[in-house]
Amino acid sequence: MADAGTLGSAGERAALARIVPRLPAAASALVGPGDDAAVLAAPSGRYVVTTDLMVHGPDFRLAWSTPEDLGWKAAASNLADVAAMGASPTALVVALAAPAATPVAVLEGIADGLAAGCEALAPGCGVVGGDLSVSDTLMIAVTAFGDPGDRAPVLRSGARAGDVVAVSGLLGFAAAGIRLLYARGVDAAGAPDRAAGLALRRRHARELDAQLRPRPPVADGVAAALAGATAMLDVSDGVLLDASRLADASGVAVRLDSAALLDGTEGSAVSARDVLAGGEDHALLATFPPDARLPGAFRAVGVVAAGAGVLVDGRRVPGSGGWDPYEAWDGRGG
Amino acid sequence: MADAGTLGSAGERAALARIVPRLPAAASALVGPGDDAAVLAAPSGRYVVTTDLMVHGPDFRLAWSTPEDLGWKAAASNLADVAAMGASPTALVVALAAPAATPVAVLEGIADGLAAGCEALAPGCGVVGGDLSVSDTLMIAVTAFGDPGDRAPVLRSGARAGDVVAVSGLLGFAAAGIRLLYARGVDAAGAPDRAAGLALRRRHARELDAQLRPRPPVADGVAAALAGATAMLDVSDGVLLDASRLADASGVAVRLDSAALLDGTEGSAVSARDVLAGGEDHALLATFPPDARLPGAFRAVGVVAAGAGVLVDGRRVPGSGGWDPYEAWDGRGG
Repeated sequence: MADAGTLGSAGERAALARIVPRLPAAASALVGPGDDAAVLAAPSGRYVVTTDLMVHGPDFRLAWSTPEDLGWKAAASNLADVAAMGASPTALVVALAAPAATPVAVLEGIADGLAAGCEALAPGCGVVGGDLSVSDTLMIAVTAFGDPGDRAPVLRSGARAGDVVAVSGLLGFAAAGIRLLYARGVDAAGAPDRAAGLALRRRHARELDAQLRPRPPVADGVAAALAGATAMLDVSDGVLLDASRLADASGVAVRLDSAALLDGTEGSAVSARDVLAGGEDHALLATFPPDARLPGAFRAVGVVAAGAGVLVDGRRVPGSGGWDPYEAWDGRGG
Repeated sequence: MADAGTLGSAGERAALARIVPRLPAAASALVGPGDDAAVLAAPSGRYVVTTDLMVHGPDFRLAWSTPEDLGWKAAASNLADVAAMGASPTALVVALAAPAATPVAVLEGIADGLAAGCEALAPGCGVVGGDLSVSDTLMIAVTAFGDPGDRAPVLRSGARAGDVVAVSGLLGFAAAGIRLLYARGVDAAGAPDRAAGLALRRRHARELDAQLRPRPPVADGVAAALAGATAMLDVSDGVLLDASRLADASGVAVRLDSAALLDGTEGSAVSARDVLAGGEDHALLATFPPDARLPGAFRAVGVVAAGAGVLVDGRRVPGSGGWDPYEAWDGRGG
């Protein structure tokens, strides 16, 4: 039977023989998987690198995520970081550790999710290498590569007073999704429950998909760079904290408009707190010169001003002091 | 106290603030850690990528390896794969998952080992990014990058009949090391024991260092490429299996001389089986044109001939049929 066997019973080599053919090819690979290392083209003479780790328990639950979801999300979260540099994702390498009892079919599902995520979010990006090991804990570490082209990479540090602050992608939906799962995707004892999770996913598809199978606006990373973005980052720890990172790196203040941030959450389970301080949005937060035309799905949510820190509707955010190491010395809340 | 706290009590951000300053800088980093992604120079317009995962249990034991050993080995095993392409290692990214109870001092030790390994084996190579997560199992995934320069990468597939087969680095010592540890680095119940391991390491330093803190001949990778190596790979699954991979990829036979392979093991605990079929050597196996002068520490161990498979002292290796998926169709042992 094609889907029989576990990682332990099949062995690493036989498992790989089933997994590798499902992985997407990378258009930029000069030498693909199968040698000691892959060789990738860097036509611009430089390349972008980021790595992100997902661990069963803190980062996902198999009761709630399908294997395809896991592969997709592992790809998506890394592709978003490449996009946030204004670069085009070219390739991934994947290190996966799984319990010996893991069905090889689960690993095939993860590979299918990696392929589907690359195809949907960054066509041409593929998997050029990896490693597979046995572990008590299922864990997926993806390293992603990108080509910034002939443009300077878009850093966090280039925002200037007068710039427009804009967001592409969903804010708060992923946080609402995990909140819903912990509240209602559980059994009577409070443990993650597959059936409850599935029922919830049907009812709150946007929130749960944002959490379990996010669609970061990857193409908008390059679009932002081409439109002259002065600074950009991937919103992964809540827009307030990530905006404060951009403000601090750039030596400016970021003034946000709450109505603009909350736009699009009507009729959803997303709260203002999810939008401002939720995690795992994988949206892009960028700043553009005042006269720039906002590209792609970017929407204006604020302006850059002289000063420091983040203000929402003109006010320092009460209670925001807890989440930021910079807080102690930027005078916020005074 | 500087070394107080665990990953769980300190939190990810505070732990990173202690770890990151200990990591080595990369000379080729245009943008280092701290943004969404790093940006690396690729002066030759291409780059080499490899990834390797180490998991507590199957791949190492904290009773036997110090944190510095782990960081060193995680770097070394990846640097060897970059070297095996004829490339010069430039940078690493490191994804680390550890139990919440792990002292931050252990993570600092791993960082120190990464730094020491890079400095000793590939000066200028540094860590340009990473991720840190909590997990029930300690796990280190390193992705390494390298610059092949203006030379073609050295693949497994270029060996030609008449070429000299040569090895740089130790064969069998790492396998002898782990064999000794499992036999005598244990307590009365057979569990890995720190004191027994330390005593054994003093007595069998070469074997245990080869296992716990390997020194692959990284610089010999580039040296081999410059000397015209036609094929090369990192010996990680025993020289016979890895030679069969080279033979198969190149469509040739590899004839090895057992006396040459065993040279240097006199007076050690290394057995012929350790040399031929042991794992984790991280030596380089390469083929050179007959008139090439062998560079660096390379020593001749055989020749390439027309045909298929691997012969030792002119004979197909009995019992070698079990370890290789190619075995079924190359007629070996017939």
